[in-house]
Amino acid sequence: MNQEVYGIRAESGHPDWQKIAVPEVGKGQVKIKVTAAGLNRADLVQLAGQYQPPSGTTNVLGLECSGVVVEAGELSGDWVVGQRVCALLAGGGMATEVVCDHRQLLPIPSGCSMIEAASLMETFSTAWLNLFMLGEARKGEKALIMAGGSGVGVAAVQLCREFGVESTVVVGSDKKLAECLSLGAQSGINRNRQDRLELKQYGAFDLVLDCCGGDWLEHHLSLMADDGRLINIGFMAGRYGKLDFARVLMKRLQIRGSTLRFLSVERKQEILTDLHKQVWPLIDKGSIQPVLDQVFSITDCKAAFAHLASNQTLGKVILTLPDS
Amino acid sequence: MNQEVYGIRAESGHPDWQKIAVPEVGKGQVKIKVTAAGLNRADLVQLAGQYQPPSGTTNVLGLECSGVVVEAGELSGDWVVGQRVCALLAGGGMATEVVCDHRQLLPIPSGCSMIEAASLMETFSTAWLNLFMLGEARKGEKALIMAGGSGVGVAAVQLCREFGVESTVVVGSDKKLAECLSLGAQSGINRNRQDRLELKQYGAFDLVLDCCGGDWLEHHLSLMADDGRLINIGFMAGRYGKLDFARVLMKRLQIRGSTLRFLSVERKQEILTDLHKQVWPLIDKGSIQPVLDQVFSITDCKAAFAHLASNQTLGKVILTLPDS
Repeated sequence: MNQEVYGIRAESGHPDWQKIAVPEVGKGQVKIKVTAAGLNRADLVQLAGQYQPPSGTTNVLGLECSGVVVEAGELSGDWVVGQRVCALLAGGGMATEVVCDHRQLLPIPSGCSMIEAASLMETFSTAWLNLFMLGEARKGEKALIMAGGSGVGVAAVQLCREFGVESTVVVGSDKKLAECLSLGAQSGINRNRQDRLELKQYGAFDLVLDCCGGDWLEHHLSLMADDGRLINIGFMAGRYGKLDFARVLMKRLQIRGSTLRFLSVERKQEILTDLHKQVWPLIDKGSIQPVLDQVFSITDCKAAFAHLASNQTLGKVILTLPDS
Repeated sequence: MNQEVYGIRAESGHPDWQKIAVPEVGKGQVKIKVTAAGLNRADLVQLAGQYQPPSGTTNVLGLECSGVVVEAGELSGDWVVGQRVCALLAGGGMATEVVCDHRQLLPIPSGCSMIEAASLMETFSTAWLNLFMLGEARKGEKALIMAGGSGVGVAAVQLCREFGVESTVVVGSDKKLAECLSLGAQSGINRNRQDRLELKQYGAFDLVLDCCGGDWLEHHLSLMADDGRLINIGFMAGRYGKLDFARVLMKRLQIRGSTLRFLSVERKQEILTDLHKQVWPLIDKGSIQPVLDQVFSITDCKAAFAHLASNQTLGKVILTLPDS
């Protein structure tokens, strides 16, 4: 364990693979030798200096990884050295090693490669939390999934299919639309080719999973059903929206902001416990599948980040560690 | 029961006391001889032609009343002729008689006059539903109550006091501010004399009970605590607000529209059951008191509506029936 540890930090707005230090393993913690790490849009925002990690969290990038437990502290549950795991992190996953609380781990679903396993935690935690825990999606309801071709999007579409929720997607290309339909979305539009008003025929929506914000807000509120819930997880289309109180009031709508990263470890554990019980079995038996876009060596991180920033990705971009 | 029945309808934007017909008592329904009826801001909006009653509901005004059961249909629960009740109505309360579902009734709290009882149902149902059922206010939290001197406002302030929630009010006069403080509000501002920025010292707020909408939205979001809930029940300050997604997202805020009138009878029954169990005992023992502004004869309805529209009222305006 005297090997040097490397990880990705932001340097002048670019990802930089550099020597780092990881902390000692404390009570309740484990150290993971990382096999692969998932890229998320939040990494791009952090890279741009617009997303400070929670206080006390490493500034090494990376919100999720797969790997092998190489050290387990006191009171770190049932995890043992040598076990293959995937981790939901507040930071530090894009590194040769990471230390985290044992409650942020799940086992690798059977049949998943370590690379596939690195794509699961952020996407399925986000989709599960927002659609089912906060959004309270029920069988027979209709959901509108923005950015349906993103990692979270393809996870959300598959969860909707498995739990009886009808999903409509908004995507940026015909290729993404076709993929979403093949994964079980009932309908959708390519926003670069079609008018957003076409969504009206697929509503009214009980749930909107929104990463866009901006001027989509007014449009979403007009498409929502009585007692509808809009869960906002990003504002790629703009920080400000126009809120129509008449619609919110008369349809008894809810608008709710949700981030995973800043939740307490206890809350993350609740989500992962639910995920392990409800979703992992579906991945185990192959009903739900990881959707990977491209795999990069972590030393090519600049290319990987640029690829995610292009908005051309369908599913997840994964970084693999040099000697894994 | 061959007496002629009178009630208030909107005629060219004004309340008009006129002959009406009430329906036969059906299964599950009761007929009430009305003693007194409460005025609500929703009546003003309906009068102005901007608030259609739910379909199938009478266009006779009046969302709440007290009175005596004069006829009880089949399957109308334990209610019997001669019983004194108060009713939460979708319409029709400003009349000599009204027919409604038996699940929309509660008994008169002991120690309340029939006039006081006409002030309870809309105000306490609204405050209870939005603060505690939807808003999930918890002991030790901080709530901002807009229009603290309104009927709903003084009910909300008293409920906060009894259930350990710290309340701050926004009101339109020093007299209203003093009354709210005497009813248990911890702090507040007179918006006609003080800058709304002064509210900052009393937050951050876990809950906002908002009847204003408009440009208060941006201000409210800036004052809210992490995981805060804004429940909107009106938009007296404007139909549109500017939503800052960065705040909503990073603080995990909720914004939720809520109306009582359009809820199903089943949902209203849930609220009333809760109210009867949690709040009626506090009224019975005098801990919570009805706050009345002024009592008018129902034949003076024009004066009563003008008085409510003046925004000078503190607590409820009540109409009494001629022979009660």
